[in-house]
Amino acid sequence: MKYPKTLNDLIECFKKLPGIGEKSAERMALSTLDMDEDILKLFSESLSNVKEKIKRCSVCNNLSEDDLCEICKQNDRNKKVICVVEDAKNVILFEKIGSYNGLYHVLDGLISPLDNVNPEDINIEQLINRVKDNEIEEVILAVKPSVEGETTSLYISKLLEGKNVKVSKIAHGVPIGVDMEYIDSLTLEMALEDRKNIF
Amino acid sequence: MKYPKTLNDLIECFKKLPGIGEKSAERMALSTLDMDEDILKLFSESLSNVKEKIKRCSVCNNLSEDDLCEICKQNDRNKKVICVVEDAKNVILFEKIGSYNGLYHVLDGLISPLDNVNPEDINIEQLINRVKDNEIEEVILAVKPSVEGETTSLYISKLLEGKNVKVSKIAHGVPIGVDMEYIDSLTLEMALEDRKNIF
Repeated sequence: MKYPKTLNDLIECFKKLPGIGEKSAERMALSTLDMDEDILKLFSESLSNVKEKIKRCSVCNNLSEDDLCEICKQNDRNKKVICVVEDAKNVILFEKIGSYNGLYHVLDGLISPLDNVNPEDINIEQLINRVKDNEIEEVILAVKPSVEGETTSLYISKLLEGKNVKVSKIAHGVPIGVDMEYIDSLTLEMALEDRKNIF
Repeated sequence: MKYPKTLNDLIECFKKLPGIGEKSAERMALSTLDMDEDILKLFSESLSNVKEKIKRCSVCNNLSEDDLCEICKQNDRNKKVICVVEDAKNVILFEKIGSYNGLYHVLDGLISPLDNVNPEDINIEQLINRVKDNEIEEVILAVKPSVEGETTSLYISKLLEGKNVKVSKIAHGVPIGVDMEYIDSLTLEMALEDRKNIF
């Protein structure tokens, strides 16, 4: 004994979403019965269009509905600086800071031999060509400080060595607003090593 | 600076679901890019059909795609017993027990004067008529033990008094598998009051 078919279908679909189990899917499916017709229409249409409409920016590989993404389209950006990120979600994170004005490069993954992800499986070649062809002044490596992140950063910096481009890496250390007691010792070690002189 | 339009629309739609904030909506919208075409199609179609297809059972007010719901359609049910529940979700809860064999009545709410929900706003009249017209033997009140639940139970039992029908209420007490220390004192009081003789 279950819900009527359309609701069951919806529950199954909601369950495919990340982090959604049986109970939440049920709650979500039932909540659609109380949604506005307009919202449901937009929801339904967006879902059926999303795969077809969302492409990749031909320059930076960011998510985009056009050939160029919203960021590469902007003329007031500093086109000499590229911030290299793991995925498109991270682009939004950096955009939220508000002060970064350069471009991005979305790798779409990190090198991870254990998971069978090799350098040629992510967009590294596209990045190297982009640096060569556009007289880029700085490449900022902004991937997470995991084994995969460090491997990827190292690999990219090796390829860019001697190419007349500055390569930097975002700082790792104690995040703002956190109690010191919750910081793991590896982070503390990094924070200590990269300490800044005050005077 | 945000995601492309279709993704933004999706994020906004996911945010309308219960318990979904900005971050989860973002994660869900992005995950649709990796979903199978078939699932997306089913998802999209189910959403656009759900309001139109899902109706109410003309007998018990349960969710249904036809005039009669799956439960009212079954011939091997005990049609003399009605379990009164707050909403259609609770029907599924009782069905999961597996041993209840009677019918249901979905009130679609509880009496709550503070929220402006009066007896005529929920399906009480339909229940009373159903009891009168069908020689019902027992009405089981199975709403939650809140002020609203108790008010609704009391109201319904008053209306059914002297109508030659047994009216009962599900037991309240200590749930199974919970440490005693986590039980609130009101529940404990109820459990003590409704204690069962062992010998």
